[in-house]
Amino acid sequence: MNLPNTLYLPELREMLSDGNAEELREFCTALHPASTADFMEGLSAEEAWRVLQFAEMPVRAEIFGYLSQERQVEILKLGDRAEMAQFIGHLPPDDRVDLLHEVEPGLVDQLLPLMPAAERRDILRLRAFPENTAGAVMTTEFARVSENFTVRQTLEELGRQAEDLETIYYIYVLDDEEHLLGLVSARQLVSAMGKPDTRIRDLMEQNVVSVNVGDDQEEVARKVAHFDLLAIPVVDQARHMLGIITHDDVIDVVVEEATEDAYKMGGMMPMEESYLDSPFVTVWRKRVGWLSLLFVAELLTFTALASYEESIKTIAVLAYFIPLCISTGGNSGSQAATLITRAIALGQVNLRDWARVFAHELLMGLALGAALGTIAFVQVLLTPQDMLDMASPWRLGLAVSQAVTLICVWGTLTGSMLPIFFKRIGVDPGFASSPFVATLVDVTGILIYFSIAQIYLF
Amino acid sequence: MNLPNTLYLPELREMLSDGNAEELREFCTALHPASTADFMEGLSAEEAWRVLQFAEMPVRAEIFGYLSQERQVEILKLGDRAEMAQFIGHLPPDDRVDLLHEVEPGLVDQLLPLMPAAERRDILRLRAFPENTAGAVMTTEFARVSENFTVRQTLEELGRQAEDLETIYYIYVLDDEEHLLGLVSARQLVSAMGKPDTRIRDLMEQNVVSVNVGDDQEEVARKVAHFDLLAIPVVDQARHMLGIITHDDVIDVVVEEATEDAYKMGGMMPMEESYLDSPFVTVWRKRVGWLSLLFVAELLTFTALASYEESIKTIAVLAYFIPLCISTGGNSGSQAATLITRAIALGQVNLRDWARVFAHELLMGLALGAALGTIAFVQVLLTPQDMLDMASPWRLGLAVSQAVTLICVWGTLTGSMLPIFFKRIGVDPGFASSPFVATLVDVTGILIYFSIAQIYLF
Repeated sequence: MNLPNTLYLPELREMLSDGNAEELREFCTALHPASTADFMEGLSAEEAWRVLQFAEMPVRAEIFGYLSQERQVEILKLGDRAEMAQFIGHLPPDDRVDLLHEVEPGLVDQLLPLMPAAERRDILRLRAFPENTAGAVMTTEFARVSENFTVRQTLEELGRQAEDLETIYYIYVLDDEEHLLGLVSARQLVSAMGKPDTRIRDLMEQNVVSVNVGDDQEEVARKVAHFDLLAIPVVDQARHMLGIITHDDVIDVVVEEATEDAYKMGGMMPMEESYLDSPFVTVWRKRVGWLSLLFVAELLTFTALASYEESIKTIAVLAYFIPLCISTGGNSGSQAATLITRAIALGQVNLRDWARVFAHELLMGLALGAALGTIAFVQVLLTPQDMLDMASPWRLGLAVSQAVTLICVWGTLTGSMLPIFFKRIGVDPGFASSPFVATLVDVTGILIYFSIAQIYLF
Repeated sequence: MNLPNTLYLPELREMLSDGNAEELREFCTALHPASTADFMEGLSAEEAWRVLQFAEMPVRAEIFGYLSQERQVEILKLGDRAEMAQFIGHLPPDDRVDLLHEVEPGLVDQLLPLMPAAERRDILRLRAFPENTAGAVMTTEFARVSENFTVRQTLEELGRQAEDLETIYYIYVLDDEEHLLGLVSARQLVSAMGKPDTRIRDLMEQNVVSVNVGDDQEEVARKVAHFDLLAIPVVDQARHMLGIITHDDVIDVVVEEATEDAYKMGGMMPMEESYLDSPFVTVWRKRVGWLSLLFVAELLTFTALASYEESIKTIAVLAYFIPLCISTGGNSGSQAATLITRAIALGQVNLRDWARVFAHELLMGLALGAALGTIAFVQVLLTPQDMLDMASPWRLGLAVSQAVTLICVWGTLTGSMLPIFFKRIGVDPGFASSPFVATLVDVTGILIYFSIAQIYLF
């Protein structure tokens, strides 16, 4: 769906070179703006901007909003600064702030003074909110009404505002000092059309679910999902209403957070660009950092093994079980880390639950480890005597299976406690990701394994 | 947010025992239904059902919809069958089908005949759609209008339907045979209120983005997110309109899919229940399956190593690098698998891109492997001679670093191609998860390592 749709491209170019205004106007309005934008992805920035001239302003801004961010930046660099500054004024407040984040600061400094004062102030205010907070995601345009309005007045007012607002389906009731008093939905208004003189005061819901401007966007997404909202108002400490976050931005947040979490689990830095479009060196840098870090940490296994030199030389078969022990710790650890990280993200587990989680995972680690230990024990007993090259397969079996069980418990506990610990010290629990936990458990797994082997076999 | 809120519980129980109807009615309507449901989580099923009697029907059904599914099932088992069958008729069509999936078949068979015929038919039809398809997620209640209606007539009609519909913000225009002709938004209606005699025919958008009833729910979510929709219509092959999927269900799908993907990456079966609420044995079963499978697969490393018995006995130091080689394959493999799985999920990579991905990852694997190989080479040269216990650290360094590079390439290629291959044969690419890829690469990593060591050192 994000791939350039090239089927229509020759026709589009022909229309442009013929200057066929009527067909170009038709092209800009016939489809959903997102589809129009898809069709235009194959055009150059300059061509795209020329096509957009044939759309009336609200539609032009909408189609532009669906172009890829790289293309948007290219277009901004093109034309006349004053023209672009004016155009930016028509974009939704949250989108234009995102866009200006991607533009080089020099260009922003040229554009800002050319914008109308109100838009400029709005941009500067939104830019000041830290990334990933409600303030940074919200838009400042929303439908508002006084509590003294009647249903009729409100509907008329809405009809006037409808074109400029991202959503008119929730109408917020504010007092003169912009405090959020309540909410009426368009559904309530339509239901109340039979009594057009009803005051908003008597219709509005007063218990409005809202978020604070400093709240994390994940918290915002959770609230919108929990309450099945179309939009959520953003307020400050004094409950002044500052903006709204709409359902479509919430879906974007959920997808973005899921992608980031997945990257962390896979052991790489989050990427914002599309996989095939990203420059090779950028992707390499995002991947090599974690890989090298994990590799260097893993070098500790070398030192650990070297300290058991004598054991390995005496009983070579001990070395054969190293991968098994290591992977047991890694797999049980990343499983537990995934489970707890996800439970934290979904709000199912809180910091104060750590003792319950610990007890739960201790038992679980033992129950899982018992299963794996049994498999290991059977495997040793089934292995031909000459391959083991030792007198007492029973002792080896006991040593390996006990080591596997203990490593599994250790992996499970590490994997479950690390995300909670990270959350506690203010680090994203997602960083307690599979490769991170696995590497940590690898080294300790070797120590556990050889310590137990020493007891049983020497 | 999903934790039982127990603060209000004693008051609530007192109201019940006092039979304080006025306060209980107030409790049921004062808050958002989701909050009311949160407050009720601490009650027994029987108490909850008694409290719900004090809410009028639409609100009762709404609060019920926000209770946890286990609690909903408990309540259904409680009361009089006829009463429950009637109540189920008031639940949103998509929710009640989900709910009946969780109830034992015997009870469903008792409830169904007691329902009104229309509701029963609707339930049976929705139940027939395969899980995770648009048909299974959609609701069959939506606002509909004829193209001959005027704006005024439509608004009046909406006012009548508003209470029963999940969303009235998109109104679908159908012909007499239920074909989807177009869409008007409540926004358009409100804007057109000044010209109340405008026909819907002249107002509606005809290019309506829709999904097919058999489409996967992930595809639905992608479309809704791409087009920033409030709801998407579900049609059959002949473009008969069957239902809609609303934005809140799409958010649930996105969260559900992200959670499932995360579980797959962490090597466990997807869980639908909340972590701390799930029975121990259920969780154990979901976890032990994958862990045992991975463990048994990992036993192959034992066989692989045993076949290099002589090498290990002659040069014990070779064994020290086993964890390093294994983890290199595992980390590079799971990184690539994560990246490609996510790119597929986001629609950035298609099956026909496989050759581009292969070329990309081949180069990337070499570039990443070169970095890791260099670290390994330096590490060997820096290790004290007596620890290595061999004459030529240069040869060992070359062997280890070349093995690390090759294993990294191998891991990257396996990790990137497996999700595409899985997708090709119709298996969820998410199953090409970190632990799966890691285990696969572990065994081959050992073979690569010892093969190269043989060349350099024997």
